[in-house]
Amino acid sequence: MSATPTTTRPRRSKAAAPDAARSALTPERWIEAATEVLVDRGIDSVRVDVLAQQLQVTRGSFYWHFRDREELLRRVLQAWRERATEQLTLRLEGAHADPREQLRDVISLPIRGRAAQRAARIELAIRAWARRDAMARQFVDEADGARIAYIAQVFSSLGFGVAEARWRAFATYAYVVAESQIAAPIAQLQRAERDRFIEQLMQLPLPG
Amino acid sequence: MSATPTTTRPRRSKAAAPDAARSALTPERWIEAATEVLVDRGIDSVRVDVLAQQLQVTRGSFYWHFRDREELLRRVLQAWRERATEQLTLRLEGAHADPREQLRDVISLPIRGRAAQRAARIELAIRAWARRDAMARQFVDEADGARIAYIAQVFSSLGFGVAEARWRAFATYAYVVAESQIAAPIAQLQRAERDRFIEQLMQLPLPG
Repeated sequence: MSATPTTTRPRRSKAAAPDAARSALTPERWIEAATEVLVDRGIDSVRVDVLAQQLQVTRGSFYWHFRDREELLRRVLQAWRERATEQLTLRLEGAHADPREQLRDVISLPIRGRAAQRAARIELAIRAWARRDAMARQFVDEADGARIAYIAQVFSSLGFGVAEARWRAFATYAYVVAESQIAAPIAQLQRAERDRFIEQLMQLPLPG
Repeated sequence: MSATPTTTRPRRSKAAAPDAARSALTPERWIEAATEVLVDRGIDSVRVDVLAQQLQVTRGSFYWHFRDREELLRRVLQAWRERATEQLTLRLEGAHADPREQLRDVISLPIRGRAAQRAARIELAIRAWARRDAMARQFVDEADGARIAYIAQVFSSLGFGVAEARWRAFATYAYVVAESQIAAPIAQLQRAERDRFIEQLMQLPLPG
């Protein structure tokens, strides 16, 4: 079996003879590498040749796992969605808790450690990509919609009507997104103080 | 005078003989074209050769106005800052008005017509660029800082203390930015309703 498959070779069945590159790299490894390049250098640099070089494998070995670059990009978005959905699911599992606690969770999420910071960087890169790409845009819109719907549910549990729950959810989500995107200098302690303040503000009933 | 100046030729004084390309294109035209390409195709496509081709002039004519690509990019950011500052100045001029009116202005800004939509697209492109570029990052951070400071001033006029005014300003600014970035489907009328609601919510005093 040739060690230099061409980029146009059709995908072979799993029954084919083993290939060093194929066994060494899982599709997940390619997706991870693509995500790294997306974050560090932007979507235009997420190319099969760039990734193959970085992973020190042949371009051809890419085609064991993916039809083309488009499929890889879709898998990057799907992997991101799975993680985002997982986060949401974890919160929904805690749905027996006081909705006030759930709201606190939503607002304090972005400051939760290194994993959250990495997730924020990936999300920012995907948002930048979505600005010019319809497929990425669709994934981002779906994620935003699902999160706002979840937060709206929390406000409904707090007794607010449908429209008001959605408006409060949008404003709360905007605040959370801004915390990870807007670099207004603020110390960790002040940020926690601001979070508590916003948490209270978002729950105030309008007079009348 | 040669019609094909090289890219390394030093900038000539204005006293030099006239040149067709030089007289035809102002620096502002290059900056505008660069901004268009930035919005449509991202920062990596903002290159002298791409712009020259689009403007149908020689690459060399670029160097009548700019030392290099870096200088063009700085001018793009400066042009954006000028417009952003101008908007802020216009609002500050209306500083005799009721701060409640000023807050309404801040919140309803993003839906004000075509020019605002174009400005939002440019700002989004610059934010995407800032994610991976220190110079762009600095301009974005400055703009965010100046706007939050302005909104905080409005909340101070409404009687809130320094910290609280800043927190409310941050949340309000987050809401405004999200309105231009998050594509949660909402009809124009409902959006205006939401704006009015958030405007009231942001002004509620915390009990106790």
